[in-house]
Amino acid sequence: MKAIEVPERAIRMEYRVPYADTDMMGYVYYGNYLTLFERSRNELMRASGFTYARMETEGGAMLPVVEAHVDYHAPARYDDLLVVRAWVDEARGIRVKIRCAVFRGEEPVADGYTVHACVDAKTRKPIRVPDYLLNSAIMP
Amino acid sequence: MKAIEVPERAIRMEYRVPYADTDMMGYVYYGNYLTLFERSRNELMRASGFTYARMETEGGAMLPVVEAHVDYHAPARYDDLLVVRAWVDEARGIRVKIRCAVFRGEEPVADGYTVHACVDAKTRKPIRVPDYLLNSAIMP
Amino acid sequence: MKAIEVPERAIRMEYRVPYADTDMMGYVYYGNYLTLFERSRNELMRASGFTYARMETEGGAMLPVVEAHVDYHAPARYDDLLVVRAWVDEARGIRVKIRCAVFRGEEPVADGYTVHACVDAKTRKPIRVPDYLLNSAIMP
Amino acid sequence: MKAIEVPERAIRMEYRVPYADTDMMGYVYYGNYLTLFERSRNELMRASGFTYARMETEGGAMLPVVEAHVDYHAPARYDDLLVVRAWVDEARGIRVKIRCAVFRGEEPVADGYTVHACVDAKTRKPIRVPDYLLNSAIMP
Repeated sequence: MKAIEVPERAIRMEYRVPYADTDMMGYVYYGNYLTLFERSRNELMRASGFTYARMETEGGAMLPVVEAHVDYHAPARYDDLLVVRAWVDEARGIRVKIRCAVFRGEEPVADGYTVHACVDAKTRKPIRVPDYLLNSAIMP
Repeated sequence: MKAIEVPERAIRMEYRVPYADTDMMGYVYYGNYLTLFERSRNELMRASGFTYARMETEGGAMLPVVEAHVDYHAPARYDDLLVVRAWVDEARGIRVKIRCAVFRGEEPVADGYTVHACVDAKTRKPIRVPDYLLNSAIMP
Repeated sequence: MKAIEVPERAIRMEYRVPYADTDMMGYVYYGNYLTLFERSRNELMRASGFTYARMETEGGAMLPVVEAHVDYHAPARYDDLLVVRAWVDEARGIRVKIRCAVFRGEEPVADGYTVHACVDAKTRKPIRVPDYLLNSAIMP
Repeated sequence: MKAIEVPERAIRMEYRVPYADTDMMGYVYYGNYLTLFERSRNELMRASGFTYARMETEGGAMLPVVEAHVDYHAPARYDDLLVVRAWVDEARGIRVKIRCAVFRGEEPVADGYTVHACVDAKTRKPIRVPDYLLNSAIMP
């Protein structure tokens, strides 16, 4: 069983696996973890005091994903109550790297990261990560 | 604004809309409501004292969907905190009909129903809806 | 085996079922048929000589779904090569009703319909179905 | 524009982007590329003369994903006709690594890889990659 180091500042959310997430192998389909990662990033952003929704509408910034990685450790199954942790690993210039880890109880199910490029919501051109995000409580 | 009558026995769950559920119109994609309906049915079954997961593994019964219907009243959007209500509308013989309604606050977003045929988990042949379900607290 | 009457004017497309579409029952998850219906509607619109993509960008009209219905006849499975037929059932005023039917060979897998309200792409207010669509070859 | 080297032996498939795949940014949601990767792996396996479906049922072997990686180069949009290439990068012992690349015309949209552990379909224990796969035409 692989040990995943989760920093104290990581947010924590629970997720109940629906039938929809499973595949004929009886496991959560591998692609669905990226949606789960996104759910935890939404809660991570909310913890910054400025939701991602507000960041796009009022803040004028978007964080499209430029890179995603998942390591799968153990299959998750229908009706499992998973625990997802997420934290900012690094943020500077126009990039933010966020790590996510999924557990069933103490057992690691999957972990990985996404790298985001900050862009202007209108022009979609790269811009620096906004100060209200860099100065927020979720930064390392 | 359409009024949807929800019986008191209906279960209630909350659901936070992820980016994944939206489409380029900025709304929750119409097909994703069927997954949301399923999430609420899982909580409905849990309220019966016998989860759907247990019903399949220990109870030897499955409830595949034979009919599904959705009426869309207002678009749901990213980061909306939706409230989903679900209740058994009718159960007899080999069929169960479950109704679901989705709200944002008091505003109806969508409602509909699914009809399920009860089948033996191994043979996949129709069987009568199990007594432990018919006699449970979630029945009308 | 239920007989589904498909009019000659219906478009036809093939679809190979990926693992992603299946669930732990080994069947295509019931909600995924609405995505399949949409794929066939896209090809139906293309056959009108004016794609739905162009309708939204150049035509200034959108067709959000206000009602959806599916009847499931037989389970589809991983790697099945499905055939999907779609046709306009009715179009008048601000509404369009489209029917879809899914087959595996000659065997009916599912069928159903969607009802769409025509809206202005900018204001999202109801407008009459555009003449270029009403006068196209896909109309009944 | 990043250059992606695709070996001649790579299979090629086309994919039309449905509305379902898009998100409110107007782009294909980042998680959906893993489903697209899977679609191309299915065609890659078919090209080996032994489909993945047969491998699971007759061959008694499964290839669950243990690692997935995606690099996103340019957004794909609704109704784009994407071209997906897939090829075996490496196969030995109990592991297979498959690379996928997605293009719109000549433009790279995304690329990445998945690593699969070969397991017995019944016991789900690691087994060596079957000879019929190792000796097939799709191997490097």
